[in-house]
Amino acid sequence: MKQGAKKIEPKKPVQEPARELVANRETLKRIFIMRESDSSRATLVKYMEQILFGLHEFLMHHVGITEERSLVELSRRFMDSAINPEPEKRLAEVIAELIDEIAPYAVNVSSPYFVGHMTSAIPFFMVHLSTFVAALNQNVVKIETSKVVSMVEKQVLAKIHRMIYKRSQKFYNRHIQSAYTSLGGFVEGGTQANLTALWVARNRLLAPKSGFAGVEQSGMAQAYNAYGISRCIVLVSQLGHYSLRKSGGVLGIGSDNVISVPTDADNRIDMACLKKIIACLEKDEPAARIMAIVGIAGTTETGTVDPLNELADLCHEKAIHFHVDAAWGGPALFSEKYADLLSGIERADSVTIDGHKQFYMPMSCGMVYFKEPKAMDAIAYHAAYVNRPGSVDLGIRSLAGSRAANSLILHGALKIMGKRGYALLIDHGIETAAAFAELISERPDFQLMTRPELNILTYRYCPAQLQKRLSTATPAERMRANQFLNRANTLLQRHQREAGKSFVSRTTLRRPESEGGPAVVLRSVIMNPMTHPGILNEILDEQESLCKTRLKSAFAVDLSSS
Amino acid sequence: MKQGAKKIEPKKPVQEPARELVANRETLKRIFIMRESDSSRATLVKYMEQILFGLHEFLMHHVGITEERSLVELSRRFMDSAINPEPEKRLAEVIAELIDEIAPYAVNVSSPYFVGHMTSAIPFFMVHLSTFVAALNQNVVKIETSKVVSMVEKQVLAKIHRMIYKRSQKFYNRHIQSAYTSLGGFVEGGTQANLTALWVARNRLLAPKSGFAGVEQSGMAQAYNAYGISRCIVLVSQLGHYSLRKSGGVLGIGSDNVISVPTDADNRIDMACLKKIIACLEKDEPAARIMAIVGIAGTTETGTVDPLNELADLCHEKAIHFHVDAAWGGPALFSEKYADLLSGIERADSVTIDGHKQFYMPMSCGMVYFKEPKAMDAIAYHAAYVNRPGSVDLGIRSLAGSRAANSLILHGALKIMGKRGYALLIDHGIETAAAFAELISERPDFQLMTRPELNILTYRYCPAQLQKRLSTATPAERMRANQFLNRANTLLQRHQREAGKSFVSRTTLRRPESEGGPAVVLRSVIMNPMTHPGILNEILDEQESLCKTRLKSAFAVDLSSS
Repeated sequence: MKQGAKKIEPKKPVQEPARELVANRETLKRIFIMRESDSSRATLVKYMEQILFGLHEFLMHHVGITEERSLVELSRRFMDSAINPEPEKRLAEVIAELIDEIAPYAVNVSSPYFVGHMTSAIPFFMVHLSTFVAALNQNVVKIETSKVVSMVEKQVLAKIHRMIYKRSQKFYNRHIQSAYTSLGGFVEGGTQANLTALWVARNRLLAPKSGFAGVEQSGMAQAYNAYGISRCIVLVSQLGHYSLRKSGGVLGIGSDNVISVPTDADNRIDMACLKKIIACLEKDEPAARIMAIVGIAGTTETGTVDPLNELADLCHEKAIHFHVDAAWGGPALFSEKYADLLSGIERADSVTIDGHKQFYMPMSCGMVYFKEPKAMDAIAYHAAYVNRPGSVDLGIRSLAGSRAANSLILHGALKIMGKRGYALLIDHGIETAAAFAELISERPDFQLMTRPELNILTYRYCPAQLQKRLSTATPAERMRANQFLNRANTLLQRHQREAGKSFVSRTTLRRPESEGGPAVVLRSVIMNPMTHPGILNEILDEQESLCKTRLKSAFAVDLSSS
Repeated sequence: MKQGAKKIEPKKPVQEPARELVANRETLKRIFIMRESDSSRATLVKYMEQILFGLHEFLMHHVGITEERSLVELSRRFMDSAINPEPEKRLAEVIAELIDEIAPYAVNVSSPYFVGHMTSAIPFFMVHLSTFVAALNQNVVKIETSKVVSMVEKQVLAKIHRMIYKRSQKFYNRHIQSAYTSLGGFVEGGTQANLTALWVARNRLLAPKSGFAGVEQSGMAQAYNAYGISRCIVLVSQLGHYSLRKSGGVLGIGSDNVISVPTDADNRIDMACLKKIIACLEKDEPAARIMAIVGIAGTTETGTVDPLNELADLCHEKAIHFHVDAAWGGPALFSEKYADLLSGIERADSVTIDGHKQFYMPMSCGMVYFKEPKAMDAIAYHAAYVNRPGSVDLGIRSLAGSRAANSLILHGALKIMGKRGYALLIDHGIETAAAFAELISERPDFQLMTRPELNILTYRYCPAQLQKRLSTATPAERMRANQFLNRANTLLQRHQREAGKSFVSRTTLRRPESEGGPAVVLRSVIMNPMTHPGILNEILDEQESLCKTRLKSAFAVDLSSS
């Protein structure tokens, strides 16, 4: 038999690897083995240095968001759809290409002037930890491809669960390493976290019962029949993330059945409205079932937090699954000063928190947590070769199958940052946003559109004169002026983005017609600790200057012409 | 206004950063800025070196799969559920902990002796590329947080699409950078790819029509009413991946409606059976609709490929969505010698391919492709602040929201490897698996249970004497003996895993009772180019030795006692 082996793998003299770019077994082996010689070691380290600092130097010297170059022009460089038969480039050349040809036209999300989206600078150690995860390449779908790493993941999940739910020491001792329960799961991002939470809610509502195998096995139509339900409904404020509608679509309840509830003047779900909607449903459509009510802890557009305790009371009274989408705001729980803003989150049946947002982890990492350690049983799957019942395989209760050990990154980050390190980031964001709101209010030609509760605010440019005239305008004039302002602020955001010095995003806030209808607003997210009010002032200066020069005509709204 | 800024951010003298472990604004800034001094640069590089080589040295000196230490004992170390108030460790200490305390008890998936799962060694450049992705931290949900990187992603998608579908140059010129079409998408893994494919299939089958807004908006129950459908069905061989059942559950069609079709003697879907099932459905349940038929290009358990052309013919005739799950086998298309095994894949409506499998990318990366560039419109979502219609935002047609730019890794890998580099890996896997099958067949006490078509095979230990006696045994004796063998092979796999020198996995193959019923088999996946027949022989030696010593009694099956 050993002969059989020899026949297939004949002993060859070790060849000096060819330096030209051809793929052969020797070059193949070279790329799978990091050779032990000092020179090859030095080369690999040099590459890493290039990535860490070549890229970093670009980012330092291009504080602008991105180089000015049109998307169409750029896209012409990426038109080749053929894969080269032979290798084209060495690693060093690929790295050079990435640094010289890709990075300059990517977006410098780490700039303190990039205050438009929920993507920001990350601490440099995150990159190191991320490299470790790739190098160890564990697959946490099962213990056989991750072993201790699955245990670390369960520990990290328990730590964050405890931050949210503050259950007893005994509770965590029992569940932290249990093969039979799950306190939550790591997922790709907030969308999957919300989807997982609603998936669990759906399966628990339409659970197996006598004569019915449950919605997961039998499907939605059969479930509605078995339970005498006409439709399932999810209620969330109109500021709910679009992933909730998408989850409704994916799960077969229908995205239209994720119903938007109006918000109050503070951009929180309007509790009176919510109760009225529920009362109407109970009266007019008794066969409709409310599958979940979602409270938002940090809306994407305005950063506001719904009244979680009131929502919890309502859900408790009506026995409805209470989900909190804290993808953005969750880490505010780290802050001694501001954790209270999320009061009531500990009463949620499920909670979404993103890792790649205010945990400052690299893309992509989200998490979902459940109050009840058995909740995730509703989505358990097994297979013959993996995820056997009773094993600690994390893939048993998970939307994903194979999955990277991103929990190791958070494991390391929690040790390096401590609760207080994260708290400082949260406090900085909230307090800098408050200062920014003040700066906006002090400028006569700007309007603060939504006051920040966490670290997100919206505003728009509206010349002082126009503001004054609008205060006495007719509803029709107001509507017309607002349409002008919407167009003009859209242009403002685009011009500033294209100038490439700084970046705020824009969105459209729903407003009643009496206030002029939907308003296009500039949206600012303050999460970079290097962003300070001086920078924000510069951003306002740039906007003001744009509005008074290139965009002057766009803002010259003549109410009388309406 | 500038004064306002100063009030909040008073100018302080630059302090020498404190060296103790406290979180304060100064330490915070330090971790967000990589300082320019040579000494701090050297420190960061040293950390990276530690990760690359500290880890690597461990992996070199522990060729075994994992240290012997019981899971229960290990898990006791990860019982602390509190997050420390202050920082506990510096990055260097965290790295040391990861290398000294985590890695030794993780699984050395890069060992050539680890031939049990679809996770393996990866080329070292993958780690570098992965570091680049983390350091640049783009979010490809939208162009505003990724710009050129979204274009690179579209290019890579077109390259793989072309490898699968071989459409015309004109086709790719038109779609490669189009904002209005999608050739596919990067996802977290094969599960999400299958889910996305079936999501599209569901939405296209139950599309909007006069008086009905479509399943995505209105839900499954309403869709069945609108179309007069009793249930949707997905047909796949019994070797289909469990993610297909899970997708059925998630999508609201019900996991029971993902129906297993028996396989033939070669572990391919039994076409006669499939046609019979369809005929029965058409006759007995005319209101049932077949939503998709799935062909497998590389089953998880046996690595076999379904007759894709025959399935394509059938799907074409019946106008059924044809999905090919090539999560495992897809990259065989790189090989001149073996691409033909996947003949017919170019006729699929959708295809799943995993990046973290035979593209040798780090966890987690999957892909899904669609023949028709408009197919993904069926799952489009928009929001006010992102994914606006007509933008190139990749998040419009995607299960995920925020998402890492893993496409950059594949972009680099394709240049470094070329088609031929990947082909060599594929050829090595297939040919080494064939050699392994020979080695197994040559040993009298082993039985080859499934012959490898790609690079996966299954076998079991069954003493020669018992094999001989089984050939003349009664069905009842065969059943009983098989139960013994199942238990004994389960023990064998566990003992070998716990010894920690090598690793094969195990699964249970369905077999008719006439053949003794379900068979527990050892499963071997050959994807590491460093795995050669000599190593596989050692693994067989170890198994043989275990069976003849510690497991002797387990294999002492006495047929007469039955």
